[in-house]
This record gives sequence, structure tokens and C-alpha cells, in this order.
Amino acid sequence: MKLIVLGSGAGLPSKDRNTQSIILDCVDEYNEYILFDVGEATQHRILNTHIKPSKIKNIFITHLHGDHIFGLPGFLSSRAFQGGQNIPLTIYGPKGIEEWLESTFSVSKSTLNYDLNIVEVEADMKIALNNFDVSVHELEHGIESFVYILKEKDKIGELNSAALKDLGIPPGPIYSDIKRGESFEFEGQIYESKDFIGDKIKGRKIAIHGDTRVVSRQAYLDDLKGADLIVHEATFFQDESQKAHDYFHSEINHVLDNFKDLSYKILVFVHISNRYDDADIDLVKTNLKDNVFIAHDYFELPIPRNVQ
Amino acid sequence: MKLIVLGSGAGLPSKDRNTQSIILDCVDEYNEYILFDVGEATQHRILNTHIKPSKIKNIFITHLHGDHIFGLPGFLSSRAFQGGQNIPLTIYGPKGIEEWLESTFSVSKSTLNYDLNIVEVEADMKIALNNFDVSVHELEHGIESFVYILKEKDKIGELNSAALKDLGIPPGPIYSDIKRGESFEFEGQIYESKDFIGDKIKGRKIAIHGDTRVVSRQAYLDDLKGADLIVHEATFFQDESQKAHDYFHSEINHVLDNFKDLSYKILVFVHISNRYDDADIDLVKTNLKDNVFIAHDYFELPIPRNVQ
Repeated sequence: MKLIVLGSGAGLPSKDRNTQSIILDCVDEYNEYILFDVGEATQHRILNTHIKPSKIKNIFITHLHGDHIFGLPGFLSSRAFQGGQNIPLTIYGPKGIEEWLESTFSVSKSTLNYDLNIVEVEADMKIALNNFDVSVHELEHGIESFVYILKEKDKIGELNSAALKDLGIPPGPIYSDIKRGESFEFEGQIYESKDFIGDKIKGRKIAIHGDTRVVSRQAYLDDLKGADLIVHEATFFQDESQKAHDYFHSEINHVLDNFKDLSYKILVFVHISNRYDDADIDLVKTNLKDNVFIAHDYFELPIPRNVQ
Repeated sequence: MKLIVLGSGAGLPSKDRNTQSIILDCVDEYNEYILFDVGEATQHRILNTHIKPSKIKNIFITHLHGDHIFGLPGFLSSRAFQGGQNIPLTIYGPKGIEEWLESTFSVSKSTLNYDLNIVEVEADMKIALNNFDVSVHELEHGIESFVYILKEKDKIGELNSAALKDLGIPPGPIYSDIKRGESFEFEGQIYESKDFIGDKIKGRKIAIHGDTRVVSRQAYLDDLKGADLIVHEATFFQDESQKAHDYFHSEINHVLDNFKDLSYKILVFVHISNRYDDADIDLVKTNLKDNVFIAHDYFELPIPRNVQ
């Protein structure tokens, strides 16, 4: 699993940073990409990657500001001609997204050749994706804005086929039976399956935030605890916490302080304002720990599995 | 005056060609750019040019298909932060554009810091811009699609200041009086103004088409006659006229044939399908006259004045 930041900028695009779009690449595990927010020209960014639009089957919209949604109609329309025919797609987003897409497709006389399912999200909703349970918390951004916390389901451990072969049990359908059952019989002997199965592979926890002030609500922070990856905005640097608060955004050090007891593994900052140049960002980076990143466009980071 | 093609592609963007947007650069003459159609990522294309969004004061939308309008909300929103504050902008486009923009700005909670004036256009309408008279003809594209024909107003000729100086008339307010009046007096002598003013500078005629089949209606063709510049789509090459007709598009040779008696000066083809590669296009180009062009993105061409 891998994070790919397609757009790391805030508000309006610059030559370097596009407005927000973030990919969770689950192709190796689940043969799909999950897209979070679709700033204008997200489809153009995708053209510069190996991402197949047809493999984007779920889109989460954190909030309805233009820099997070204006690329959605174009992406959806083009996907129909990029191998997406008959491959359904679901959009999760705040109330209003469905009516706007209807209005947009109606005025532009667009028709899609795949099923589009739109789920309007509310705070504290639970969403069941195939391989993830998703929780939703409301943030503080003046308009409804959400963090989506994806919890990958745990997987049973690897089968110790070397040990089975030592007992003379050859590979075959019995290996699947061993993984499924509590015990199994071979040549009159009863064995415990757990003795041949490795440690459970714990699912990953990934949190992608919409724009927001720093939120200190306990239920939200509890749900973030131990996250493998948190993606959060940092529209302001340089200790401009008051300004960030006034504009319903976050200042980077304030976020770090808010998350200091969460035992997260990786933290990635996005939604970087065009006011800051490379020198500003490099300066901020010197004070960050190794597991904290400021993303640029096309930033990629593997999200390792935890074996427990 | 100059044509700048920001997006020369059809339907969906490729790495080489963006969806449609065309600039008429009138900065030298009238201190403004006029924008025709706003495909997604037009604002991104503009970032790679010297065009100031604040100097785009009029936008013409030829029709409401997504590849011609999905960049409009983002362009309008960003212009507010790119020097556009308090500089009004007018959009001319088919019925439906206003309701869609209202829906889009309402869902995204966008507010502009400049006046936005929307004029919904109908066939055969006449539009008076400051320096142009614009006529509108309906095309044939399945949905309402227009060609906008801009007719620049004629200008009075240049003052022959050398001849005036020979008479001992020094530069000053009298030079303006000479240009405005029919005759003037200097040191008791009456002169005819026309003897000191060069030939009238004829305004240019520029026609920018929306997507369309080849249209043979006489009133439309008559209005195109003698155009300094015609921009027309060529979604199909290779004599696929029947296919072009079926999809409400045009085949390039069919267009050339339709325009053969128009005495136009320059013809530029846009809306080039991604099906065609550089080799296909080079092959077509070998058969084109010197005044006929197939545009690429960032294609620029001066539109010379005619002195009569």
C-alpha cells in the first residue's frame, strides 16, 4: 500500500503545486486506488502517473470547497473513455455533492457508461468498504469538513508451508482447509491449525483530513491513535497559529503538538500555501522528525504492514 | 492582436493537448484578453504564459459540453486572488450557464471579489463589446453551439505629422482637433483634415467556432466572408466526413471545401482528437495552404491589421 499525493497545494494552483488530490494505492492488495479529493486538473496529474482511472472505484471528498472538487466532473467524464466502462464507482462526500454533480452533468449533457453511486456523508458515520472500515469525524473549517479514517481489516497470518512439508503434507487444497479450520487431520493424526499459521497481519489505519483548524476533541484523537499514516493540512507555518485559526486552517507546529501522544507511525502534511517557497519549506523540514513529511506533488510513500 | 490556443484537444485531455480554450490577445490595442471556452485546467495553462487573469474581462462560451466549461469555476475563483479584485468580468454563453455557475458557487461556498455579469446568448444575437461588434450564429452540434464573429470597429487613419510640421504646425492639441474635424484653420488658412489623415484602418473580423458539423447556411457563410481569422474544429481527418457528421463534428477537408469561396486570410483548426499522432497531423499539414494551420497547445499567431 502506498500514498501518492497528486496535489499538495492550497486554494489555487501554482506551477509547482496543484490543488488537493491524494491517492491511496491499494493495487497490490486489493486491485484498486482510492482517491481523496479531486482538485481541478487531477485527471491531468493522473496522466503523468501509472494510475489507471478505471481502478479508482471509490472517491472520498473531504469538503466541498472548489480546490477539492472542481476536478471531479472532468475526472468522472474522462474515466468513461479510459477503460472505466461498466466499472462502478462510489463517491462519499458531504451533503450537496449529489445535487451539484446532477446539475453539472445536466448542463453539460454528460452521460457515464458506468454506475455512479453517491453516498452523502454525515459526522460519526461508519462506512463499510470491502477491505476497510471507515470512520468519519467532523472537523472545524467553517463549512462541513471531514477526516476519513480507514481501518484495514486484519488478515490471517502466513501458512508455514515448510513445517507442513516436513510432516509430509504436500501443497494442495488441504492448505486452504488448514487456514480456515481450527484443527485438521492428516494420516490419522490431529493437528492444531494455529501451530502452522504465522502471526496475524494487522490491518493498517490511515487517516486523510479535510481542511481544518487543529481539533482537540477526544473521540477524534482516540480514533487516530496508533495510525500508520495521518495526512493533515498545514496551510500555515512559522507559528502563525492565530491566523490559521482565524481562517479555519492549521499551523504545522500546532498540529504536531496536538498529535504528540498519538503514537502514529507516519505524518504527512499537505495543503501547503503558495506563499511559502522551497527555502521556507526546507527550513521547516529541518525541525521535523524522520517520520514527518511535507508533501510535494507526486510525493510517494510506502505504508508498510505491521506484523504483530 | 494575437491568437493564443491554450487547449487544442477534443473531448478529454492528453499529455500534449488540453481541452479547449482560446485566447484573443488584444492587450496592445485594448488592454484585454478575450477568452473563448474554458476547458478544465485552463488556469493551469495560463500559469505557463504571460497572460494576466485580471486582464481577461470577457469570456465567450461556445457550448456547454464539459471539455469547454469544466475549467470555468476554477478560473473564476482563482482570478479573485490573481489581481482580479474589483475588475468586472462578463461571460457570454448558452442558456444554462448561469444556473450551473450559481449551483457551483453555492455548493463550494465561493464568493468573488469582482462583479460577474452573465449574458445568456441566443442565435442571431448581436453583442456590443467596447471595441467589437459580435454576431452569433447557431451551429449544428446536437446541443446548442455557437460561432462568435467579432468585428473590430474601424479606426481613423494615422495623422501625417510630417506634412503638418512642413506647414509649420507644431504638435499640440490642434493635432487632435485635426483628427476630429473636417477642416481646420491655421494662421488664417483653411485646410481639409482628410489631406493630413492616412487611410482608414479597417477593423479585423475574427470568428471562433464551437464544436459543429460543417454548416452550409448562407447567412452564416456570408457573415464569415473576408474574415481575417477563422478558428474551426477538425475532430476528424482522413476524409471521415460521414463519421464526423454522425457525431456532430467536422472533417478537415469538408471544412476547407465549405469555406473555399470566403476569401478568409487565416484559418486555424483546433479540437484535434487524441486518436491522431504527430505523424498523422504532419501528413495532413503537407496538403494545407500556407494560411491554414493545425494548432497545438500554446500555438500563437499574430492577426495583422488591414490598411485600406
